[in-house]
Order: sequence, then structure tokens, then C-alpha cells
Amino acid sequence: MPAERYSIGLDLGGTNIVAVAYSSKRGILVRSKVGTLAHEGAAKVLGRLAEQARKVQALADLRNQDVVAVGLGSPGPLDAHRGIILESPNIKGWHNYPVVKKLQPKVHHKVVLENDANAAAVGEHKLGAGRGCQDMIMLTLGTGVGGGLIIRGKLFDGVDTCAGELGHILLSPDGPRIPTGNVGTLEGYASASAIARRARELMAHDKKSLLWKLSEGDLKKVSSKLVHQAFKRRDKTAVQVWKETAVWLGRGMGSYINIFNPQRIVVAGGVMLGGDELLAMASKVAKQCAFKRPARTVKILKAKLGDDAGVIGAAEIALERA
Amino acid sequence: MPAERYSIGLDLGGTNIVAVAYSSKRGILVRSKVGTLAHEGAAKVLGRLAEQARKVQALADLRNQDVVAVGLGSPGPLDAHRGIILESPNIKGWHNYPVVKKLQPKVHHKVVLENDANAAAVGEHKLGAGRGCQDMIMLTLGTGVGGGLIIRGKLFDGVDTCAGELGHILLSPDGPRIPTGNVGTLEGYASASAIARRARELMAHDKKSLLWKLSEGDLKKVSSKLVHQAFKRRDKTAVQVWKETAVWLGRGMGSYINIFNPQRIVVAGGVMLGGDELLAMASKVAKQCAFKRPARTVKILKAKLGDDAGVIGAAEIALERA
Repeated sequence: MPAERYSIGLDLGGTNIVAVAYSSKRGILVRSKVGTLAHEGAAKVLGRLAEQARKVQALADLRNQDVVAVGLGSPGPLDAHRGIILESPNIKGWHNYPVVKKLQPKVHHKVVLENDANAAAVGEHKLGAGRGCQDMIMLTLGTGVGGGLIIRGKLFDGVDTCAGELGHILLSPDGPRIPTGNVGTLEGYASASAIARRARELMAHDKKSLLWKLSEGDLKKVSSKLVHQAFKRRDKTAVQVWKETAVWLGRGMGSYINIFNPQRIVVAGGVMLGGDELLAMASKVAKQCAFKRPARTVKILKAKLGDDAGVIGAAEIALERA
Repeated sequence: MPAERYSIGLDLGGTNIVAVAYSSKRGILVRSKVGTLAHEGAAKVLGRLAEQARKVQALADLRNQDVVAVGLGSPGPLDAHRGIILESPNIKGWHNYPVVKKLQPKVHHKVVLENDANAAAVGEHKLGAGRGCQDMIMLTLGTGVGGGLIIRGKLFDGVDTCAGELGHILLSPDGPRIPTGNVGTLEGYASASAIARRARELMAHDKKSLLWKLSEGDLKKVSSKLVHQAFKRRDKTAVQVWKETAVWLGRGMGSYINIFNPQRIVVAGGVMLGGDELLAMASKVAKQCAFKRPARTVKILKAKLGDDAGVIGAAEIALERA
């Protein structure tokens, strides 16, 4: 039986930094969460990452020599091989930012970097809905649609660590245009923003929609969460949005079943908070779009670890690449 | 340096059976080709496969103990793990046919089965346009669109050996319906049959098209080869078909670049016989549809091994799984 090993996981989000002290045998030992406060600038955010890493290490009573590495999950685009964040949508000054080189001396550990969606896939694979399977696809339906690929039990991130952009496949050249990618991609149909956008479009033709009341007439307040609330109450427009979203999500998953013949597809993200009906409808469509054999094999499941998937994955990646 | 090892490769096509005696160091030693004569039935085809295997072994002067295994590439759907051909589009009686179990005693070697498109991907990866790369996608534009995935230097065929159906992703829900899959897939846009079908559609509106002359007014004679001939002579309808095909192929490849961030995409098949302009146009579209970094990395290349890719791949798979 292999010995217990320890790492630190860091998940850098637009809103929060989550840190864990982590054991290869017992999972999360200590967990800490602070605001990212991205507006304070790059140096402050870097300092906060280091501080959180040191804090969870101390709280878990780990000595420096006990910790094999620190894993950092960050939004992309980034270059995991070189440890560089190419662009940061949230943090000013993090353009071609060598975060690994900057963070290492502050934490006194080797630091390994990975895309946050990939880290979440590793987390769900190790301890969540993907546990025990060889080949798994993860989709995260948040502001955008993130993706991660587990192939033969290991994260697959491609030659430049840019693989797994599963939200960015074309589903229809006549689809919506989005700021983060091309026309008609899965992200343009199944992200939280896409759901809100579509609801706003349809609300214009349905003045009686409950969404008007729930949003107090303020279109900016229309969110996928609100659409789900209205869907639960059988609001016509919300039901239509939910159904359309399920069809597009199902079509995307159908393509992924034909490409990967995976054991599991794990779906995470804010949209999934009200996602049971959505996932049930989408799974039906997915299996209709795919070949029989792989459609029979695949299990389509909601993610289990919630917000912790990313930080668990980061800690696991640290153990693996230490 | 590892010792030289030998295998037999068999490629079972609708028209021909190709057999090779193969060396891990020197590639093809002997090659033989005979008609499949599928109409003669399952037993005869099986006998012919065994006969060809024995023939190339004898011609290469290999003793039984020199040959580690026989690799058989066959059209799907099949179950490579169990060695069963689930359906054969061409050979009567090959329904849930345990070809491995039937063939082994006849060739006196272990037999390993693989999907022909996957075998072709292995062939191109070992000795063709994918040589030396880690992550490669192969697309075969023939009667249908086949696919194969090389991930971290190895064939990836999924949990049921059904992965890599790269022709069967949705590109538009308004696309053409095809007999072998869903509406609007890559296969429905970029196979030889799709090209011919689209040409026939457009010919109805272009009575002056050169395609009428080239096909002698017989729509059945319209093929992707004929469309390419007319394209070369700047026929308006043929140019439109070629351009449309390139756009759809490019869109599909763009999605694959975002999913896999591969080093190479290798494109094979009958359509590629006249495919230089098609591939150039499609590559441009693909790179526009993909993220910058992986678009810059990927090389999109014509396959090099022609009809031999499948049989070389089958022989390589035999060496690997022996």
C-alpha cells in the first residue's frame, strides 16, 4: 500500500480563492476560502494565494517537507507546461503572467498550474461522480461552458494544455454569437449566460411571463437561476427556454458520446443547481443522437463535489506531477 | 535496441482483402491483394482471409514461431475486445460474428481485431503523415467519414472500442439526413456520397453545368471524383460544392482542434485524391473556428499511405497487443 502523501490545492476564481491541505488517502484535511479581490491588482492576489497556501498547511500541521507540491487551478487561457497565465479575464496585469515562477518562492514548494475546468474534471474523477471510471467527460455549465477530459484514467490536456474546450464545438452555424467564441457553439446555447439571453429574447414576446415579475421588470436580473424558478412554476417562456437548452446540451453530449465512447459524462456548474430536469431531458436527446452501443454504455451524471471539485483536482494534480 | 518482431496485417474491405507480412523495423515485407468476393458468403471470406495470411507469411519466409499475432482491420460496428463483428454492411451472415475465434485456428496465430478507421489512424501515425507525433486525429473521407484518435501516442478507442466516430458529430440540425447516422453530421457534409448528393441537388438549377456532360446526363454517375474534375475546370456548380464541402469540413476540424489541441489532423480517403484545394480551404476555416493557440499548433495534412494505412495499422496493432 503506498504511503500517505500531502499537497496543497488552490483554486483561483473570479470571486474567491479556495485553498485546501490535502492527503492522498484522506482527501481534504483543511479548507479555507477568502475573497479574490481582483480589483486590488496582481501582486495582492499573488500574495493572497501564498498566504492561503501557508495557512492551510499550518492548520493541517504539515511541515514543509511533508508537502510534495502546490497545485493551482486558474481560469484560462494559460500555458500549464510553462506555468504562465496568458490572459486573465478578471485580474489586471495578469497578461503572460509567470504565476508559477512568482508563486514558488513565496510558498517554498513546487507549484503546478492547470486550467480550472481540467482541475475540476480531475477532482470529480478522483472523489466525485467520475470515481473509479477510466474515460470520463466533464462539462461545467457556468457563465461559460468549460470542459475536461479524463482518458484512460488521466487528465488529457493536449499538446499545449489547451485541450478540453468542450463548450467550443459548433452545433449550428445559425446559432447565437457570443463574446468568448464562435457563432453557434455549445457555450452559446447551454451556459448560464446563454440561458438568460434566450429568456430575455422570449420575454419580449410573452408579456405575461412570470419572469417579468421575478426580475421586477429588470432584464439585467434575468438569470438561469430565475429561469429555473419560473420553469418550476410552469411558466411558458421558462419551460421553452429550459427545453431548448436541454435539446442543445443533449446534441452536444451526443457528439461527445460518438467521439469518446466514454463511461461517464459528468455535468457541473451553476446551471446544474436546478438541473435535474434539464439533465434528464438532455440525456434523452444525447442518446438519440449517438450510436446505440456507446449510448447504452454511457452514464450521464450530475457532479458531486460542487465548488470543491476544482481545488481537489488542483491538489490531486500536485500529487501527480510533484 | 529492441529485437525485430513480425506480424501479419489483414485489411478486410468491401471490395478487397489486403494482407501484409510486417516487421517492427522494416515495415511491409510482403503484400498481397485479392477480391473480397463478399457475395460468396461468410465462410468463403473467412477462408480467404486465412489463406492470405498464410500466403504472405510463407512469401516472407516467416516461421509460425516468428509471427507474434495477426491483426485484422474490419469495417464496424464491431467489438474489438471480444473479437466480434456486430454488423457487416457487405458480408452476409456476419451478424454478431465471432471472427477472431473463427480465424485463430485457421491461421495458427493469435488474432486481434480493430475497426478499419482506427487501424488506418495507427498506420498513418506509425509510418505516414502522423509519424513522430503524440496526439493526432485522423479523418477518412470515403463513402462515409471515418475517424481515429491517437492520444499520447496510442490508439484511443473508448470503453467499448466504439470511440473515434469523428464523422458523427452534429454540425447543423438543419443539415442533410443520411442513412448511416443523424441529421446534419460531418459525414452528411463531407463524405464522397455527400459531395455527390449536393452536386446532384445543385445540378438541377444549373443545366449548363459541366457535370451534366461528364456524367453523360446520368445522375448516378455523379461522384466526388467527377465533381473534382469539374471543379478543376472552374465549373460553377462544382466550385460551389467544393467550397461548401471545405467550409463544413473546416468547421468540423475546428471543433476537433478545440476539443483535442492535437499536433496533427491527418485527412485520408477517396475525396482526398483531388483534395489539395479542398484541404487548403478547409484548413483556413478550421483555424478561424478554433482558439488561436491550438490553431497555431496544429498541422493539417493529407494522409501519406493511401490504401496501405489500414493494413499497416492492423499489423502494428498485432505487434502491440500480441
